[in-house]
Amino acid sequence: LIATGGAAAPQPPLPAILIHAGAGPFRDRLRADQPQVTRVLHDVLTRGRTALEQGADALAVAIRCVELLEDCELFNAGVGSALCADGTVEMSAAAMRGSDRAAGAVAGVHTVRNPIRAAELVLGGQQVLMIGEPADRRAAEHGLATQPNDAFITKREQVALALRAQSDAAAHGTVGAVCRDRRGELAAATSTGGISGQPPGRVGDSPLFGAGTWADANVAVSCTGEGEAFIRAGAAARIAAQVAAGRSLQTSASDALAEVGAVGGRGGLIALSAAGAYALELSTEAMPRGRWQAGGEPQVWVAR
Amino acid sequence: LIATGGAAAPQPPLPAILIHAGAGPFRDRLRADQPQVTRVLHDVLTRGRTALEQGADALAVAIRCVELLEDCELFNAGVGSALCADGTVEMSAAAMRGSDRAAGAVAGVHTVRNPIRAAELVLGGQQVLMIGEPADRRAAEHGLATQPNDAFITKREQVALALRAQSDAAAHGTVGAVCRDRRGELAAATSTGGISGQPPGRVGDSPLFGAGTWADANVAVSCTGEGEAFIRAGAAARIAAQVAAGRSLQTSASDALAEVGAVGGRGGLIALSAAGAYALELSTEAMPRGRWQAGGEPQVWVAR
Repeated sequence: LIATGGAAAPQPPLPAILIHAGAGPFRDRLRADQPQVTRVLHDVLTRGRTALEQGADALAVAIRCVELLEDCELFNAGVGSALCADGTVEMSAAAMRGSDRAAGAVAGVHTVRNPIRAAELVLGGQQVLMIGEPADRRAAEHGLATQPNDAFITKREQVALALRAQSDAAAHGTVGAVCRDRRGELAAATSTGGISGQPPGRVGDSPLFGAGTWADANVAVSCTGEGEAFIRAGAAARIAAQVAAGRSLQTSASDALAEVGAVGGRGGLIALSAAGAYALELSTEAMPRGRWQAGGEPQVWVAR
Repeated sequence: LIATGGAAAPQPPLPAILIHAGAGPFRDRLRADQPQVTRVLHDVLTRGRTALEQGADALAVAIRCVELLEDCELFNAGVGSALCADGTVEMSAAAMRGSDRAAGAVAGVHTVRNPIRAAELVLGGQQVLMIGEPADRRAAEHGLATQPNDAFITKREQVALALRAQSDAAAHGTVGAVCRDRRGELAAATSTGGISGQPPGRVGDSPLFGAGTWADANVAVSCTGEGEAFIRAGAAARIAAQVAAGRSLQTSASDALAEVGAVGGRGGLIALSAAGAYALELSTEAMPRGRWQAGGEPQVWVAR
């Protein structure tokens, strides 16, 4: 299916997709949702696989997987976004292509239905990061679907906000995808609704390249968890530097999470290397996550 | 002055300050302003030196130096900020302390007079990055000086915006400072008004940790130049990773600027290491910059 060259051509590593839907404690809510979470993640991997098999590139597939996760109310991104302390929704997303490090992100957007598509739009333009109302407006001007901020507010997240002080109900977090296509190229995409009860204006690691999202010629990374700690650890950039220096992807990923722990945070990450390795790491009780690689079937896990 | 221990105590490296006031082409405007630019940079270094000699810590001094640069209309930060395409001013700033990687940044603020003080406020709280109106509001609530956005608009920058298409008049950029105090601790601070004529909502590398600003136990970095390229190169994080791996600061700084060039950008950076090294690098024609180290006098340069 993916072999292309003659005998002398080196085989690129197998096409692959990793996805995550946040990292956090394995609360009752996540336990109850586990069958549905598993089904959605499996479906996203299957759709991504089909696209890759049909020749789609890594960036397109990573973005498409994140878009599908944004469209699921179970996850804290797009229509399932957590609510800020004032009851509004603020979303952020980022996409990066490894081959040329083209990068686009939005932060603090309120009306674009799929923030990852707004990030894709930024990636195609002159800027790298656009924030707030101008980012929403540009998305609308380019024909992306928008909806009033109220339409993002789910009953689930209203309950989560109300219960936050008692139960830290926001166990479902940020979503992300990393992809390696049949040419061996890499891409990463991440999208988030932030933290339930966060102050409006707060931005975490998801839209920040080198913190929660990164892709270069060697590696693609998407992180989730306590965003401030991922920023202060420079988590994704740390993995990129270590892989570039020849360290294994697995060791680099573990080291990055240890570094996040050293500045007081927990979370998880997914990463694929150009050399064919993958990492699904978490320092929390649970991280809904999935993996597909050419020649195999999608696999999904929720708890550790 | 800075020796503290007995014979057995290792001497920490000498206290030092580096500052920059942007990188760009050596245009007529910068040439004409050179005497004043030199005077201001010299004054900022002298004030920072006095604070360090009186025992102030690296973070306080880096922030104070940037605040002084923000207060000078010559530079593209604070009151001298470049204008967006719509004639408004949007500012961003970041501060990071190396010892514990405490970090605070604001992006897209409109009314806080000294954005670096708003970043310092974020550093002291639970978030790492705050954007837009909530960041301005928090600054005001904590007693920081504010002024209407109109009050940031200088005649100089109105002319620059009007002439932009013909002359790229915005030769004066972002400001920044890195500092090493007498305990050997490091800090970095950066502040910017963005790019003349940028779309509102655009954020560059200055407020992004690992891109334009970084400090850890080994190194402190502040960058300036074409921000999108610094983000895509992960410039500051790249230096941090290489210094941590034992590479020299000078080589790491040169490599980072080469990497910025590899993704199509130019600029400059300042960096201090815990081991006592410093770097003042630029890939542009000019970068107003200065250096002071204990035992010496302030030195200032403008062109290459």
